Amino acid sequence: MVTATQFRGSTSGDVVETSFVLPEIQPDEVLVRVTHSGLCGSDIHMLKLPLVLGHEGIGIIEQAGSACTRLKVGDRVGWGPANETCGNCSYCMSGKDAYCLTPKMYGVDGYDTHGSVCSHAVRKEQWLFNIPDALSAADAAPLMCGGGTVWVPLVDQCKPYERVGIVGLGGLGHLAIQFASKMGCEVVVFSSTDDKRDEALRLGAAEFYATNGTTDYSTLGVAKPIDRLIITTSAKFNLGLFYPVLARNAIILPLSVDGGDLVAPYMPTVLHGHSIVGSCICSRLPQAQMLDFAARHKIYCVVENYPMTLQGVTEAVDRLRNGQMRYRAVIAWES
Amino acid sequence: MVTATQFRGSTSGDVVETSFVLPEIQPDEVLVRVTHSGLCGSDIHMLKLPLVLGHEGIGIIEQAGSACTRLKVGDRVGWGPANETCGNCSYCMSGKDAYCLTPKMYGVDGYDTHGSVCSHAVRKEQWLFNIPDALSAADAAPLMCGGGTVWVPLVDQCKPYERVGIVGLGGLGHLAIQFASKMGCEVVVFSSTDDKRDEALRLGAAEFYATNGTTDYSTLGVAKPIDRLIITTSAKFNLGLFYPVLARNAIILPLSVDGGDLVAPYMPTVLHGHSIVGSCICSRLPQAQMLDFAARHKIYCVVENYPMTLQGVTEAVDRLRNGQMRYRAVIAWES
Repeated sequence: MVTATQFRGSTSGDVVETSFVLPEIQPDEVLVRVTHSGLCGSDIHMLKLPLVLGHEGIGIIEQAGSACTRLKVGDRVGWGPANETCGNCSYCMSGKDAYCLTPKMYGVDGYDTHGSVCSHAVRKEQWLFNIPDALSAADAAPLMCGGGTVWVPLVDQCKPYERVGIVGLGGLGHLAIQFASKMGCEVVVFSSTDDKRDEALRLGAAEFYATNGTTDYSTLGVAKPIDRLIITTSAKFNLGLFYPVLARNAIILPLSVDGGDLVAPYMPTVLHGHSIVGSCICSRLPQAQMLDFAARHKIYCVVENYPMTLQGVTEAVDRLRNGQMRYRAVIAWES
Repeated sequence: MVTATQFRGSTSGDVVETSFVLPEIQPDEVLVRVTHSGLCGSDIHMLKLPLVLGHEGIGIIEQAGSACTRLKVGDRVGWGPANETCGNCSYCMSGKDAYCLTPKMYGVDGYDTHGSVCSHAVRKEQWLFNIPDALSAADAAPLMCGGGTVWVPLVDQCKPYERVGIVGLGGLGHLAIQFASKMGCEVVVFSSTDDKRDEALRLGAAEFYATNGTTDYSTLGVAKPIDRLIITTSAKFNLGLFYPVLARNAIILPLSVDGGDLVAPYMPTVLHGHSIVGSCICSRLPQAQMLDFAARHKIYCVVENYPMTLQGVTEAVDRLRNGQMRYRAVIAWES
């Protein structure tokens, strides 16, 4: 019997610390001792649910169920928002298991046993990933959701000879710049001010444009049209803003988490053959490929570090909620 | 010197009949004696321009320039909205010449020499297509723009094992149903009323749903989710109407010609990984492939026939403008 220390959301939106006796693991499950957790924008969206926070976990397997075949006690593993998928629907069978028809996901079930801002978690082996030795836990944690989220549109939709626009330089954007740059793309960053210009170039951007409240993007002086546009801002906007700088047959990939309607100019979308492609989390195979790529190319995360204490978690949540995080929080138990 | 009889738009929106002395052909051009012309929704959009109407031409080559290599006098040819593309931009070189950076297109240039509602036209050989013998001129004319427009999304985005929804049964829709059905897709037609149910099934639809002003499409009783949705209505609408009947990772292909904004529910687009893919006219290679496919599979057009007289053209324009056309007009010189 393991009693886990857990940090959860609450109806007031405050973080609370709880103790919870975890159930015995099932044959296809493992018990993970958490060492690190990232904190993601969608954790803030779920802060009023009583679930254990976090879906970017890194930890060490302490127990492995009898049916586990791939992982063993002592392995360093990571996980993202998914805990279990059916394996049998057309999405699972076609390698698009992120779109499983009956997934078990962060924020939907497993309030007591999943999450990653805690001391221990019970997870299915199915959606756990080996973390390559070359990746530090602090670099790996934000990859588990944020990294996977930007990886899919890059590898599915972008060619190495294309100009890839990254809109927004934050938790997702700073990973997207590195991935796209290491894939050989010409990376063009759009950020609201000039503050992050140097960092963007250091991360691999070839060009940087501060939008500074400009409403006519044809005046930004963009050198050549943008083939692919990956939007990582926290809020969505009318996609037409970027139409003056897009190539024909552009693909726009909105990754923001937001409500309301997607809005873009209708006829230019049809006439220029633009595509708007939704994409959410990462299926298992590309997630494993992303971790391997990140290790080979020394992808790193710009993080703020917090201790896994009530004060530490609360501080991280507040910084993220107020839009002050540069760029990703990693919350860790003291080693 | 050839004096062409031409039917043109005018600032009043009335059709006018004119005579025009065509210039001598250039080496890479041909003179075509027009036999038939389709009439397309976008002709109505351009009716106040003084251009020769029509961009779905069928005719016989009467003169061929010295540099023409593919076509000769006597050939039966057809054409759509494009007259010339550069051959050298990245779109032309990648087989996406419909998106050429410097195209010469219907409605943009060649007001006097192009168009297809006329007795003769001067055209570049480059964008003329041989019409297979198995296709009647009346069946071929509407394929030149309408057929190409629905063909591209079908062959680029739809697999034979997918459920393809066709929204709207008119000039484009009745061709899309036949193409999709002959490609082996399971074709599901959405139309506003039950009027066209029998025709849809005859054209190859497996299922038909009358939307009848329903606002919650989950109540339509659609048998299984729709993988691909091709929208051929004359006006656009909020794409969210169809979200309750879509599979995950659906691709939505809006082909309507309309103004304003494209609107769809934002977060469901991201979460379910839907794509919205603009598509406009057809590049040369797929256009030739479409004509061959249409001939092999006996694709036919449901047309209303009009004589190429001022009265005939005016009647056709009025019927189309008033939404009464079932489904496509073909205007022909008496043979």
